[in-house]
Amino acid sequence: MSTISNASAKKAEILTIGNEILTGRVTNTNASYIARRLSLLGISVKRITVVADEESEIIAAVKEAISRQINYLITTGGLGPTYDDISMSAIGKALGLPLKLNDLALQWVLNKTHAENMPLTPEREKMALLPFPCKELDNPVGVAPGAWIEVNNGNTTIIVLPGVPSEMESMIEKHLIPVLVKRQNLFVAEKEFRVIGIYEATLAPFVKKLVKNDEKLYVKTHPGLTENQPSMLIHIEYASESKEESEQKASQALNLLKAEALRLGAQIKG
Amino acid sequence: MSTISNASAKKAEILTIGNEILTGRVTNTNASYIARRLSLLGISVKRITVVADEESEIIAAVKEAISRQINYLITTGGLGPTYDDISMSAIGKALGLPLKLNDLALQWVLNKTHAENMPLTPEREKMALLPFPCKELDNPVGVAPGAWIEVNNGNTTIIVLPGVPSEMESMIEKHLIPVLVKRQNLFVAEKEFRVIGIYEATLAPFVKKLVKNDEKLYVKTHPGLTENQPSMLIHIEYASESKEESEQKASQALNLLKAEALRLGAQIKG
Repeated sequence: MSTISNASAKKAEILTIGNEILTGRVTNTNASYIARRLSLLGISVKRITVVADEESEIIAAVKEAISRQINYLITTGGLGPTYDDISMSAIGKALGLPLKLNDLALQWVLNKTHAENMPLTPEREKMALLPFPCKELDNPVGVAPGAWIEVNNGNTTIIVLPGVPSEMESMIEKHLIPVLVKRQNLFVAEKEFRVIGIYEATLAPFVKKLVKNDEKLYVKTHPGLTENQPSMLIHIEYASESKEESEQKASQALNLLKAEALRLGAQIKG
Repeated sequence: MSTISNASAKKAEILTIGNEILTGRVTNTNASYIARRLSLLGISVKRITVVADEESEIIAAVKEAISRQINYLITTGGLGPTYDDISMSAIGKALGLPLKLNDLALQWVLNKTHAENMPLTPEREKMALLPFPCKELDNPVGVAPGAWIEVNNGNTTIIVLPGVPSEMESMIEKHLIPVLVKRQNLFVAEKEFRVIGIYEATLAPFVKKLVKNDEKLYVKTHPGLTENQPSMLIHIEYASESKEESEQKASQALNLLKAEALRLGAQIKG
């Protein structure tokens, strides 16, 4: 596959932190999501590592990844309020950066805490302790902020994200993808439409086939209900170095998806 | 969780070899399966690593894992007939073991090749080239044999398995689990029964809750059809150091599962 064999491609690694993956109770869908998003933007994911919520394990894994001269390290997990959420502190130690109370992160935590009528416990305040220096990343879905850290004179970017999939995904989309699109000199064309009257699973085999045939195409379906009928929002992205190619291929995918949805008996909106 | 924090537990790592995981096209369910099975038998999975089908990547990952003084390294992927299936050769290099044509493995490959009326191409013969010395592992589902390699004076066992989930699972069950049960001094009680008239997904939430409450309990459902009705075989295992405890807890799980299946409207057989 091109994103793996391209020697000049930017290199990334994913570090998943969490006991629940190592006991096999949870499958590592976070890594799949991140790998798919990075690959789509031409970044070669070289390694995925899973370690436990243990300081020595996290420190070792971060140091090893950085020693492999990668451009991006994305970590997920271990940012919550409980005693075993130690990722920020362990990553700080691996990088030789002290933890400091981040004013902006504390404000975000306070706002969410107030909104939920909860007291600011030391456990919640802990979530605003970030490695210094870093750029704090707000969490549009949950409470725990993330961190964006540049090391190796800016050659390696470390992005520290929570492990809850919806939080991680929202932060990847908000904070990472726009920067990658810019850094990679890519043009991403986006299309969206809604179908009503068929289930997500009905269209899924066609979507799977479609994206399998093209590395640069990304299709995400968001299931929902419209007027008591199953419906879904279909989001299409195409990333390439050419605006024309991206627009044309995204439109092509849009037309193919609409035609298949109609064939399966759906109505189309927008 | 106990299997992670128990310092005296045997340690394992899982190495998944395959580009398709690194591009995010496939989720690493193989690692979840192996992690779950090992955890159930009291073995602590310390790390899961995913690397590409590239020789240097595989060699590095194997050497690193062995340097961490683990007791078991389970690898999956890269045993097929195509040019990019290089795991046996790369693992051999990492261990300093030459590849040799294994007579028994060749016989297995020949038998499957004949059964399918296929010629024995060099690509198929390649699947019988195993690190020497090793114990060859037959593949009850597919063609590619696996390998069982002891290193570090027998302190580290390396088990090399294919990446096709059904093949990998059958080989874990046939070759690894019985040895682990014996080495771990565990008694595993097994129970099985069949329910007719409900779908696997209908019982799934109850199964999930049941196994979540007990590290030592393993429940696997195999969906099928019986007289044109949905049916499933429910397989229960309980692993502990006490025969009485295992038998009692497996029976308890059996009774709970039967009661819930009846409540959901199923018939029970056996």
